[in-house]
Amino acid sequence: MARVVTGIARTNAAICEGFASLDVATAHEAQARTGLMNRRLRPRQSGMTIAGPALTCEVAPGDNWMIHVALEQAQPGDILVVSPTSPCDDGYFGDLLATSAMARGIRGIIIDAGVRDVAQLRAMGFPVWSKAVSAQGTVKETLANVQVPIICGDVLVTPGDVIVADDDGICLVPQGTAGAVLENARGRAAMEEEKRKLYAAGHLSLDVNDMRARLTRKGLVHE
Amino acid sequence: MARVVTGIARTNAAICEGFASLDVATAHEAQARTGLMNRRLRPRQSGMTIAGPALTCEVAPGDNWMIHVALEQAQPGDILVVSPTSPCDDGYFGDLLATSAMARGIRGIIIDAGVRDVAQLRAMGFPVWSKAVSAQGTVKETLANVQVPIICGDVLVTPGDVIVADDDGICLVPQGTAGAVLENARGRAAMEEEKRKLYAAGHLSLDVNDMRARLTRKGLVHE
Amino acid sequence: MARVVTGIARTNAAICEGFASLDVATAHEAQARTGLMNRRLRPRQSGMTIAGPALTCEVAPGDNWMIHVALEQAQPGDILVVSPTSPCDDGYFGDLLATSAMARGIRGIIIDAGVRDVAQLRAMGFPVWSKAVSAQGTVKETLANVQVPIICGDVLVTPGDVIVADDDGICLVPQGTAGAVLENARGRAAMEEEKRKLYAAGHLSLDVNDMRARLTRKGLVHE
Amino acid sequence: MARVVTGIARTNAAICEGFASLDVATAHEAQARTGLMNRRLRPRQSGMTIAGPALTCEVAPGDNWMIHVALEQAQPGDILVVSPTSPCDDGYFGDLLATSAMARGIRGIIIDAGVRDVAQLRAMGFPVWSKAVSAQGTVKETLANVQVPIICGDVLVTPGDVIVADDDGICLVPQGTAGAVLENARGRAAMEEEKRKLYAAGHLSLDVNDMRARLTRKGLVHE
Amino acid sequence: MARVVTGIARTNAAICEGFASLDVATAHEAQARTGLMNRRLRPRQSGMTIAGPALTCEVAPGDNWMIHVALEQAQPGDILVVSPTSPCDDGYFGDLLATSAMARGIRGIIIDAGVRDVAQLRAMGFPVWSKAVSAQGTVKETLANVQVPIICGDVLVTPGDVIVADDDGICLVPQGTAGAVLENARGRAAMEEEKRKLYAAGHLSLDVNDMRARLTRKGLVHE
Amino acid sequence: MARVVTGIARTNAAICEGFASLDVATAHEAQARTGLMNRRLRPRQSGMTIAGPALTCEVAPGDNWMIHVALEQAQPGDILVVSPTSPCDDGYFGDLLATSAMARGIRGIIIDAGVRDVAQLRAMGFPVWSKAVSAQGTVKETLANVQVPIICGDVLVTPGDVIVADDDGICLVPQGTAGAVLENARGRAAMEEEKRKLYAAGHLSLDVNDMRARLTRKGLVHE
Repeated sequence: MARVVTGIARTNAAICEGFASLDVATAHEAQARTGLMNRRLRPRQSGMTIAGPALTCEVAPGDNWMIHVALEQAQPGDILVVSPTSPCDDGYFGDLLATSAMARGIRGIIIDAGVRDVAQLRAMGFPVWSKAVSAQGTVKETLANVQVPIICGDVLVTPGDVIVADDDGICLVPQGTAGAVLENARGRAAMEEEKRKLYAAGHLSLDVNDMRARLTRKGLVHE
Repeated sequence: MARVVTGIARTNAAICEGFASLDVATAHEAQARTGLMNRRLRPRQSGMTIAGPALTCEVAPGDNWMIHVALEQAQPGDILVVSPTSPCDDGYFGDLLATSAMARGIRGIIIDAGVRDVAQLRAMGFPVWSKAVSAQGTVKETLANVQVPIICGDVLVTPGDVIVADDDGICLVPQGTAGAVLENARGRAAMEEEKRKLYAAGHLSLDVNDMRARLTRKGLVHE
Repeated sequence: MARVVTGIARTNAAICEGFASLDVATAHEAQARTGLMNRRLRPRQSGMTIAGPALTCEVAPGDNWMIHVALEQAQPGDILVVSPTSPCDDGYFGDLLATSAMARGIRGIIIDAGVRDVAQLRAMGFPVWSKAVSAQGTVKETLANVQVPIICGDVLVTPGDVIVADDDGICLVPQGTAGAVLENARGRAAMEEEKRKLYAAGHLSLDVNDMRARLTRKGLVHE
Repeated sequence: MARVVTGIARTNAAICEGFASLDVATAHEAQARTGLMNRRLRPRQSGMTIAGPALTCEVAPGDNWMIHVALEQAQPGDILVVSPTSPCDDGYFGDLLATSAMARGIRGIIIDAGVRDVAQLRAMGFPVWSKAVSAQGTVKETLANVQVPIICGDVLVTPGDVIVADDDGICLVPQGTAGAVLENARGRAAMEEEKRKLYAAGHLSLDVNDMRARLTRKGLVHE
Repeated sequence: MARVVTGIARTNAAICEGFASLDVATAHEAQARTGLMNRRLRPRQSGMTIAGPALTCEVAPGDNWMIHVALEQAQPGDILVVSPTSPCDDGYFGDLLATSAMARGIRGIIIDAGVRDVAQLRAMGFPVWSKAVSAQGTVKETLANVQVPIICGDVLVTPGDVIVADDDGICLVPQGTAGAVLENARGRAAMEEEKRKLYAAGHLSLDVNDMRARLTRKGLVHE
Repeated sequence: MARVVTGIARTNAAICEGFASLDVATAHEAQARTGLMNRRLRPRQSGMTIAGPALTCEVAPGDNWMIHVALEQAQPGDILVVSPTSPCDDGYFGDLLATSAMARGIRGIIIDAGVRDVAQLRAMGFPVWSKAVSAQGTVKETLANVQVPIICGDVLVTPGDVIVADDDGICLVPQGTAGAVLENARGRAAMEEEKRKLYAAGHLSLDVNDMRARLTRKGLVHE
């Protein structure tokens, strides 16, 4: 037996939009450096930042059937998060499924496995973070669960949690703390903006952050 | 002793052109998921699809001499397929050899080793799929065979077979079955085009492919 | 105790400019195929070639404090070369530090560890060669040395040596021999330019380089 | 803030003993091929099979402080399961901590990071499954959680779940289903024992498992 | 459709025994450094050398059905050579199949995929060279070919060719040249035995092999 | 031109013996966690600890000629440290060279490349730490330097420095500080011996090291 859980509450869209206007490194810092997925998941395009609630999907190795099932559960703004029940690098997702996903309002896919048709996906503007690129296709034989908690990129993803993804990687922000983390992240971004101006004007971070005394106390010497 | 085999029959140019207008995933599916080279060979540019008969070239580790020999055997439309007799990541091929290859009508190179001058190769529009990028040069000391069957990317390549390569990877189609595979591939592409329209209009693949009854039989439940 | 060595002599700017107008493969060949850093350090942008004197910086694992210290030592044209004292893939360097580095005239960074904010770094035009991309941040707790000889990419880098970096990789040219190596490299580049014209006109490298007799002597046969 | 959760219920000792007399492959099959940790965790000894309830321990990268904290929570028969909050290959655990762990009745350690003193650990008979072996030591600065659910080897481990580990890898069996899975596993083992006798006597699995008709139906031919 | 080719001629048993009394490095040298399988295939035991004719077996990814079919084709002394049609690390082969293989006289297995029950296989004395160790089981659904030429470890294996395997790796010697290669290998082994005595007596290889003049001519200096 | 530097001063034999009776982790800790070689160099035997002065040897890729040259420079107790000038996994060193090395009093080899005949090396009791095991042989064509500073395992090795190697890895201790580091290491070992007794008696490291107050101050809570 396999389950599709319906009626999943999503993180508020305004919060997701807030994260989309920041970046992964800031989100990660803002929740005490937690939630970062493993670096083996890499962007397959350049310069795109997305954020949205996770629509989770387990798949069997070499079998993408449940992605078809998951698409029916999509709500506009969702990010599809797919993880195989055993490691697999096959190309689970290509331009056909992406066409359907875009029609359903899905914003992108995070998959701890392979994708294919990457040139077409880039042309369509549908962003992908994956472990691999592979033309190796999949079958449709085995059931698995949709919208249950899954592990993707070594992180536990509960349906509805916020996924933030950009060229640096992917960060998960739990639904329950997303508002507070966003507020913290915005504060950090504002502070960084201040520093950026000072650095651009030639001020050293040693001075801006008042590091000199502590460096000397620790024993740094200039020769 | 080493041999250069001449008089190799190539797969018909129209067939090669046919594959070039499709893609690797479709070619691979169309011949029962066979012929895909190992994913360690990756495109060094973005958005190019090529297809053509294989001009095969063995090389010694750290020695690119036989590529010079192979260029003389080139016919317009050929794809150079190079594999070392022992694993090696050195930069066997750069912009000088690419200049010569383009002048001889070669369409691209597949190499289970390293290349260099990748920025120039991109600027020249000469496409490359390689295991590595490396500035490490090679010598010209050791003979090997040209236009004999070789193993490249874990696939047996017979001279004249069709190579299809794009951003997803590389697929080999044997000369003897290339016509039939192309026909099958075109049928698949046409069918996919139909589905693409339905998906873009918001129809679910569950309905387009009539999957619901089988999912239920296998035990899928919605909660 | 940790040291910052001041008063480091840099390789002459004109020599650095000379290398910047060539490429890594040529520099590497011109000094008898030495000085190439390990391929695990990869460009995080496309199509940029830089050359300049190394400003070296050791860092503790997961700790980017000494990069802040190193920036004060920068002279216009320097290339920052960073290596952790124990292997680490964290994101040591991002857009804030890059803003400061650019303001100080630094031309780029070579780091045997991770960077973050790669999309912003590309947008800023600040070039990076790194072992990894990671949003994982670092702390500021542990001292290390600045402007001492370090090992980066398996190569010993002495402060002031020339770093040349492009899409193929990174090559180090020692300060003491940089002038002679540049002259040699320019000679090679001129010779290659001659060959490029001949190859583009359809001449074979077998003839241009007079290889036929030696191939036959070694036993090559055409069948 | 960081938490140590006390009063964790362990899976019954008799059930754990049951698994210890079987093996990982059987446990994994017996729960529908779920629960297998990633193959990057490898045994650092040969020929040992252990099973016991998980005592979970998060650690910061490069910091083994919480292992010291976790040892106080040990009950005889526990298996220590350690995972860093960010990937790290340092040597978190060596012969000193193993001495303490053995004194507390811990049966072995599963760690998604590095260990050291492997020769001594083998001599002591304390079994280890780790991602790496490294002499690189760690500090004691940062808190993390003990006896909370953690992800180790890409699997969610809840304190008290059964860990089964042998030369093939590591399998997690959830506490709630451990009894039923054990029964199923014992049934499989008995059935395999029957087959083993038949195979040893020269009977073919094609006959023992009655596969011939199905092979022929699928199209297998002998030439 | 899939084929099992019967009536395959094996390399003479005496020749195989000859190779078994030498080693892989010598066999490889004796046929001009060809035939070595990729290093990703590693021994799962220590100190065993085997040689015998290849019994080849293709398998589908995650599916070990054809190994059952292949066992029926075994002749005493054969070495089973298994390769998946798409890369896969699952545990295709364990102690049950090994029991049957031993009963059929098979000497060992070479598999470009995973195995399981490695502790039991070692205890049984059945030697294995594999790409991976994994408890992940396989299904029995898809046909593939037995006793056809396959690519394993990046080498083309024709049924009946000699496989030589030891702790250093695996070398293939084609059936047609096996006798000559063995003779060559024995000559090398005898010559090495002579040198071994001289080296053990303290003679330097520089003198035994008369290298000094050539070193000086090439420019070696002692300072 | 290539050089063999003679008259290299070795670290005192008594100091080397001192390190051989300790282990790599202790040596590494005793010099402020520096000097550890990259983990890609692994022991090819089990349970051996050696220490001795480095006899350094550069080699060209795929060419072991200079190892023959280096053997003449050996003094009893030396450890041969070999590094290729460009990455290479070939089998540079086997049982013949080991026979000669043992006859010259060399204690073991550290090589950032491949070795072969590992079964024989184990049988001979000649310990090896290498990046790879490979039957792929090498040629004798290209000169390189002997007894000059080289980079091996990402660490700068100056001839005569102490190498300490065991199952955990390899640590370099510079000749100039070897005495002081040994004294420090012995102190640490003695202190650890005290702790080992307390831990074996059931005392917790939390108490032995007085950690409880600091944990509470940092915010650790038990629930």
